[in-house]
Amino acid sequence: MRNLTMMTDLYQLTMMNAYLKMGMADREAVFDVFYRSAPGLEFAVAAGLEQAVEYINNLHFTEEEIEYLKSLALFDEAFFDRLRKFRFTGDIFAVREGEIVFPTEPILTVRAPLFEAQLVETALLNIINHQTLIATKALKITQETTGAVSEFGLRRAQGPDAGIYGSRASMIGGCTSTSNVLAGQLFDVRISGTHAHSWVMSFPTELEAFRHYAEIYPENCLLLVDTYNTLKSGVPNAIKVFDELSAKGYRPVGIRLDSGDLAYLSKIARKMLDDAGYPDAKIFASGDIDENILSSLKSQGAKIDVWGIGTKLITASPNPALGGVYKLAAINLNGEWEPRMKFSDTPEKLTNPGFKTTYRIYGGDGMAAADLIALRSERFDETKPLTIFHPLETWKKTTFTDYRMRDLMVQVFDRGKQVYELPPLKEIIAFAARSREEFWEEYKRRVNPHRYKVDLSDGLYALKQSLLRANQEH
Amino acid sequence: MRNLTMMTDLYQLTMMNAYLKMGMADREAVFDVFYRSAPGLEFAVAAGLEQAVEYINNLHFTEEEIEYLKSLALFDEAFFDRLRKFRFTGDIFAVREGEIVFPTEPILTVRAPLFEAQLVETALLNIINHQTLIATKALKITQETTGAVSEFGLRRAQGPDAGIYGSRASMIGGCTSTSNVLAGQLFDVRISGTHAHSWVMSFPTELEAFRHYAEIYPENCLLLVDTYNTLKSGVPNAIKVFDELSAKGYRPVGIRLDSGDLAYLSKIARKMLDDAGYPDAKIFASGDIDENILSSLKSQGAKIDVWGIGTKLITASPNPALGGVYKLAAINLNGEWEPRMKFSDTPEKLTNPGFKTTYRIYGGDGMAAADLIALRSERFDETKPLTIFHPLETWKKTTFTDYRMRDLMVQVFDRGKQVYELPPLKEIIAFAARSREEFWEEYKRRVNPHRYKVDLSDGLYALKQSLLRANQEH
Repeated sequence: MRNLTMMTDLYQLTMMNAYLKMGMADREAVFDVFYRSAPGLEFAVAAGLEQAVEYINNLHFTEEEIEYLKSLALFDEAFFDRLRKFRFTGDIFAVREGEIVFPTEPILTVRAPLFEAQLVETALLNIINHQTLIATKALKITQETTGAVSEFGLRRAQGPDAGIYGSRASMIGGCTSTSNVLAGQLFDVRISGTHAHSWVMSFPTELEAFRHYAEIYPENCLLLVDTYNTLKSGVPNAIKVFDELSAKGYRPVGIRLDSGDLAYLSKIARKMLDDAGYPDAKIFASGDIDENILSSLKSQGAKIDVWGIGTKLITASPNPALGGVYKLAAINLNGEWEPRMKFSDTPEKLTNPGFKTTYRIYGGDGMAAADLIALRSERFDETKPLTIFHPLETWKKTTFTDYRMRDLMVQVFDRGKQVYELPPLKEIIAFAARSREEFWEEYKRRVNPHRYKVDLSDGLYALKQSLLRANQEH
Repeated sequence: MRNLTMMTDLYQLTMMNAYLKMGMADREAVFDVFYRSAPGLEFAVAAGLEQAVEYINNLHFTEEEIEYLKSLALFDEAFFDRLRKFRFTGDIFAVREGEIVFPTEPILTVRAPLFEAQLVETALLNIINHQTLIATKALKITQETTGAVSEFGLRRAQGPDAGIYGSRASMIGGCTSTSNVLAGQLFDVRISGTHAHSWVMSFPTELEAFRHYAEIYPENCLLLVDTYNTLKSGVPNAIKVFDELSAKGYRPVGIRLDSGDLAYLSKIARKMLDDAGYPDAKIFASGDIDENILSSLKSQGAKIDVWGIGTKLITASPNPALGGVYKLAAINLNGEWEPRMKFSDTPEKLTNPGFKTTYRIYGGDGMAAADLIALRSERFDETKPLTIFHPLETWKKTTFTDYRMRDLMVQVFDRGKQVYELPPLKEIIAFAARSREEFWEEYKRRVNPHRYKVDLSDGLYALKQSLLRANQEH
C-alpha cells in the first residue's frame, strides 16, 4: 500500500502549523467535497471512495518525510512532534460509489479537527475528482450504445494511476471489460484483448499471421483486419481462417476494425461475414471513439457489436477535470457549531453551509423525482406532503404526496475508525447500474437533458438566507 | 519501487504466448515510440525517461501475478515458466528528457526480443505520453509570460501519479515551483504555497486571519485577498498587516488573487500596493488559467508577477493526450534485419522503417535549423555540404554548408543493462532550457508557428520508397 501522506499542497502544511500555533489545531470543522455545475456535467457518477478510504487508513508521517519538511525551514519541533503522532481521528460521510450525484451535492463530507481536515483536502479531491470524472465519462459513452464497451486507454492515460484507477472507474460507469491486465488483477474485472498490428507485421503475409493466431487461440479467435486493406485483404483472409477453424469444430469470435470509415467498413464486413456463414461472428471496433462518434455511427446504422474505447474515455477528453472542490461548511467554536459559507457575487458560487446530507426523493412510480440537500439535524416525515424549493429561483416549488426518501450518504469513518465495509467492485458495478436506472432517460441524455431538481430543505434554505443577510450587514 | 510489470494490455500477453509457441519469442525487433502531427503539437518536450528506466529495471513477474494469469485460462505452463525468468535483455535508445522533439521523430527506440518488446509497449507509452504531454503544455504556458509559473494542479490531476509525475514534467517544461509536497520531496524541486480561503473563514474577520498569518510567517507573508471582497476588504486588510509587519522590520512577500477579473483587479491592487509603499510586494494570481488567458492578460497589461496554474496545466486541457504510438520498424529473421513499416492510404500515417536516430542540424549561427531522421547505419561527414528533403513533398530541399549535427538519442540500455546515468531533475531542467533556446521564437510561438523542417536522410528515404514500391506490387 502506497503512503500518500505527503501528497498534499504545501499550504495545507503551513495552515496546519499555523492552526497549531494558534491553539486551533483541534477545533473541529466540517468540509464538503462537491462539484459545481459545468457544461456536460449535469450529473456525475460518484467513484473513488475505496481509494480515499485506503488513503485515510494509511495516513502517517515517516521520519524521512519529517526530515524533508525540516529542510524547508518553515516549521518547528512542536509541529513535527504533532506530525509524528498524526492519524485521522475524524468522521467521514460519503455517497456510495456508483451513485448518481448532481452539482452542489456533497459527495464526501469530512468532520474532523482542522489540523487533520486540512491535510486530507488535496488527496481526497485528487482521488474523488479523477474517478468520478472517468466514471461519468464512461456512463456518457456507454449509454450511447447497446453494444458492450471495453476500456482500452492505458497507453494514453495520464500516468500509471490514471490507467489503473481510470479503468476501475470506467467499469463503475458502465464498461464491461478492460484491456488493462493489472486492473483485472487488482479489481477482479474482466479483461479483453487479442493481437495488434505488430503480430500481423511479424509474418510474411496476413493470412499466415491469422492462421497461426487461430491455431494458438482456436476458442478466442478475434482477428484484427486493418493492417493492410480491410475489405480486400483483412476480411477475406479472416473468413478463410474462420473456415479452417470451423472445419476443426470451433466458432470464431469475430473481427476487429481499428481505422477507416467504421460505418462503411462495418456494414460491408457484416455482409461478407454473414454471406460466408458467420452471422454470429462479432464486429469489434476501436480508434479514437467518443460519445459523439458513437452516436453518429449508431445513426448511420454501423454494424458494430463491441467497442474498444481508449483515449477519449481514459482522459475524459475534451473536459479532463471534474473541478470538485472542498469547502468549509461549519466550524466548532468552544463547543458550538457555527455554519460557514463562501460568499460570492456569482450565485452559483455560494456554498451551502452546515452539516448536511442529500435525500433522493422517489415518486409513486419508484423513479427519482428530485434531490433535497438538507441539514443532518432536520427530520422528515414521509407520511406528510413535502414541498421543495429551487435553490436560486425560489418561486419554483414542487409538492410531493406519494413519495419516499433515501439518504444518499453513508458514514464511512467514525472518530477515525472505518465503519463502512467497502463493497467489492462487482457489487459497486451492480449498484451503479441500479442507481442509473432510477432516472428517466430524459435526465441522462447527452443533448439538452431535462434539468433534474436539486433543492434545499427548509432548514438549509433558512440558514443560508440568514448567513447571506448577516454578510450584507457585516 | 512499484512493480508495474502487469500494467500492460492483455493482447501483449496473448501475443507473447503466441510468439513463444511459434518459436519466435527470441526473434529481435525494433520498435519506435513517436507521436504524429496534431493541432497544437508542432513540437513537444520529451519527458518521462527516468520513470521508464525504473519500470524497465523493475520488470519481473511474481508468483501471485502468475497465479492470476493462470486464472484467465488462456496460457500454459511453458509461458509461465518463461514469465518466471522474465527480465529485460534488450537495448533502449532515447532522447534526453527536456529535449525538444517533433512529430515522427523517435522519442524512444526498443531493440529487443519480440517477447520483451511486446510486453513493455503499454507502460512505456503510458509513461512517455503522459510526461511529454505535460512538459509540452508547461512550455506552452510558461513561454506566454515572463513571470514565474508555479504548478498548482494536484487536486485536479487524474489520480496520484498524474499529480506527482505531472508536477515533475511541469518543471521540465518551465515551471519554477509546485504546490505538491510529495513532488518536492521526490524530485528535490522548490515547493510553494501559503494559505487557503478556509484559513480566512476560520477567524471572525479577514483582518484577524491575515494578522495571525503574518505573525506566524513574518518572512513568508503572502496573503490571499479574495475571500470576501478583493479591493474593498482583501487588499486594504493586507496593507494594514503589511504595515504592522514593516514596523517589525519585515518585508511582505505579496498578495494572491484567486478569482474575479484578474486584469482589472491586478492593476488596481498594484496601484494600492505601490501607493502604500510596497512596490516590491508581488502579485500572485491563480484560477483556471491557461496559455490563452495568460496571453490575453498580458495584452491587457495585467500586473501579475507569479502565476499559479492548476487544472489546465496538470490535465493538458483541452487536449489531454499526446497520442504517442509504438511501431514496429524492423525485425531480425535468421540473423538478417528486415525493415518494416505500417502502410496507410494517408501519407502522414506511413511509419519510418529501420533502426534510426534523429540528428539536429545547427546553422552557422548555432541555432537549430532542421532535424534529420536517418538510419543508424548511415555516416555523415560534416565537412561536406548536406542536402535534406521534405519527407512528403520531395521537391522541397535544403542544402547546408556551414553546419553541425547532433545525435538526439543516447543509449540507455545495452543488452538489458542500464548504461545511461539518469541526471538529477535540476540538470534535466537546465538541459531543457538550453534545448528550448536553440530554437528561434518563430518555431515556438503558439499561433501559426513557422514549420520546422524534419526531413529524412537519403538512406531512409530510399528505404521507405523501396518498401512502398514492394507493397504496391505485393
